[in-house]
Amino acid sequence: MTNFEPSPYIHQKIKDHILELEIDRRDKKNALTDRMYQTLSRALSDAQVNPDIRVIFLHGQADLFTSGNDLKDFMELDLRQGSAAVDFLHLIASYPKPLIAAVGGPAIGIGTTLLLHCDMALASEEAIFQMPFINLGVCPEGGSSFLLQQSAGQKLSNELLLLGEVFTSQVAKQAGLINHIYNASEIIAQGWELCKKMASKPQDSMRTTKALIKAHQSGQIQGVIDNEFEQFARLLQTPAAKEIMTAILEKRSPNTTLSQSS
Amino acid sequence: MTNFEPSPYIHQKIKDHILELEIDRRDKKNALTDRMYQTLSRALSDAQVNPDIRVIFLHGQADLFTSGNDLKDFMELDLRQGSAAVDFLHLIASYPKPLIAAVGGPAIGIGTTLLLHCDMALASEEAIFQMPFINLGVCPEGGSSFLLQQSAGQKLSNELLLLGEVFTSQVAKQAGLINHIYNASEIIAQGWELCKKMASKPQDSMRTTKALIKAHQSGQIQGVIDNEFEQFARLLQTPAAKEIMTAILEKRSPNTTLSQSS
Amino acid sequence: MTNFEPSPYIHQKIKDHILELEIDRRDKKNALTDRMYQTLSRALSDAQVNPDIRVIFLHGQADLFTSGNDLKDFMELDLRQGSAAVDFLHLIASYPKPLIAAVGGPAIGIGTTLLLHCDMALASEEAIFQMPFINLGVCPEGGSSFLLQQSAGQKLSNELLLLGEVFTSQVAKQAGLINHIYNASEIIAQGWELCKKMASKPQDSMRTTKALIKAHQSGQIQGVIDNEFEQFARLLQTPAAKEIMTAILEKRSPNTTLSQSS
Repeated sequence: MTNFEPSPYIHQKIKDHILELEIDRRDKKNALTDRMYQTLSRALSDAQVNPDIRVIFLHGQADLFTSGNDLKDFMELDLRQGSAAVDFLHLIASYPKPLIAAVGGPAIGIGTTLLLHCDMALASEEAIFQMPFINLGVCPEGGSSFLLQQSAGQKLSNELLLLGEVFTSQVAKQAGLINHIYNASEIIAQGWELCKKMASKPQDSMRTTKALIKAHQSGQIQGVIDNEFEQFARLLQTPAAKEIMTAILEKRSPNTTLSQSS
Repeated sequence: MTNFEPSPYIHQKIKDHILELEIDRRDKKNALTDRMYQTLSRALSDAQVNPDIRVIFLHGQADLFTSGNDLKDFMELDLRQGSAAVDFLHLIASYPKPLIAAVGGPAIGIGTTLLLHCDMALASEEAIFQMPFINLGVCPEGGSSFLLQQSAGQKLSNELLLLGEVFTSQVAKQAGLINHIYNASEIIAQGWELCKKMASKPQDSMRTTKALIKAHQSGQIQGVIDNEFEQFARLLQTPAAKEIMTAILEKRSPNTTLSQSS
Repeated sequence: MTNFEPSPYIHQKIKDHILELEIDRRDKKNALTDRMYQTLSRALSDAQVNPDIRVIFLHGQADLFTSGNDLKDFMELDLRQGSAAVDFLHLIASYPKPLIAAVGGPAIGIGTTLLLHCDMALASEEAIFQMPFINLGVCPEGGSSFLLQQSAGQKLSNELLLLGEVFTSQVAKQAGLINHIYNASEIIAQGWELCKKMASKPQDSMRTTKALIKAHQSGQIQGVIDNEFEQFARLLQTPAAKEIMTAILEKRSPNTTLSQSS
């Protein structure tokens, strides 16, 4: 990647030992492209070895987090090239410095699953969450089939993954996806305050504590991400998934004979 | 089982791709006999390979789920023949299609523990739950010693298993045994609606999602069920358990010298 | 330890098959010394093989549990001699009889982490909890980096360990550290009632149930306690931890250049 050109939709800023990563592609509801994932991954890799950076702060705007992966990108996914999204998920799943997210508005698909790899997360009262994979004919990703039940308990986790419906910040808190709920007008500022607090802690203690918390299952999570992606890629090729995604792109209802096929 | 005659206390119906299994033995509070477990297991095994069936819906009536295993059956358990209840628990612990339960009234013993193997469960406001094993001189069954703490957290799980007391739908929801609480008059209808919703999803996605959710511990759960049953069967033969169950059948208080013996 | 002299700050009493262990060193806010840990460990080891003892009841007073390990003791810790606190934690992590705690007031450091090894715990409305390890330049201990997330979920667990702030009984209940909250005036009596209830259960069932609940991860927890302690001991020798603890003992603010060092 010697000639890698970062995405203009990811703003990067370093201040007070905090690396701020802002997703800003509002005309597409902050949908994430391969270039955007690569930009996030590269920024995180650089920050990992930069002794000046203690905390990563990921956010969108006060009314938007991310609508997730672009459907077109899903349909054009070339498995021989791997997936920039999955590379990003592997990276945050074993990232050694604290990751903090502030969710102002919709956090769809990977917008929800990436929260499972953030150490703490805040959301606005108006934020909504969804893991719509089953409704698209695909399956959970990013370790969510494993991590969500640990945090939400079996029944709530099953409901969110098997029905794929939208849920509120209140449910996200109950499911252990976020820590606190704030007014949208203060969500970004509250995220900053939290990051500053974490940056002021003894840093060896901070990284050792995070490493101990992750130690007992980090290898397992990477394996789960791979297993999920293998099924995800397989399902993308099924008539059911193709019909559903084509119907969405064509703004029509999917043919149920095809879309429910077993 | 070439001449197997299904129990008349289990009603079976297939409609809208849903297999409905109704426990109906009201004069014995829906207590489950070996024949009833075998009938449930056979229906589930048939449904597993029937492409027309997408979802299983298990319920009792609007005011009753099941009072659990018959005490007499416990005392007459012949270990050389295995246990129809344990066979049923093994089956639902690794069942590939979604299992939905609607709990209208009392769900005692296995009536509570089987919920840990249902993908989603609903209960009425009046439903009550209990895992009374310790009070009978036996021990947890059906994987509950392992699965309940994952869902309820350590302290609540310990309380429900070590004290063996009755608890409400509110506590069952907190413990992750059920998803939602409804009025008793609509509990069966709400269960149907949920089953229909699940039957309308892309079926390869549904089964792949369930398989991913279960993948990381399905082998372990089967082992736990066996370990628990080994202890359960051993405890059934102790003076404490025999005295308690005999006292219950004879409607008298147990002799505490015997019933608390170590 | 043939000439072991028990600490006068641990009161021991056996009544109704219950071993009561009261921490009573009020002039030091019930801070625990090596001798106190050793006294607790020895009492527990004796009780383990005493058939008359069915339940252990650990508590302080109606307004105090324990302020945790003495900071001076931390700084003088001689690793070649091991740690009496870690020996105590190993012992309660695999203790076969029920351990019940009643928390009337502050439960700091090990005062909070030991609750993860109690089968049930009660707290007063006024009780406060804290795992301040990160603020002292050290790290989680006693299995908390592993057990707390199982009980509290990932996000709440991270918050309590990565920020190290004081939290209330309400949060402790939500985090699965305690079962019930009572008025301070009745907390010790409520603990007794619970212990008596547990002592009245069939004792083979009680121990078998506890053994089944612990079986699937008891080996893992002992390993986690050791891994945490290795890091804890290493961090104690860092300039950050030394500066923080010296500043606390000298009642001044720590030098931030030193205390945040990475």
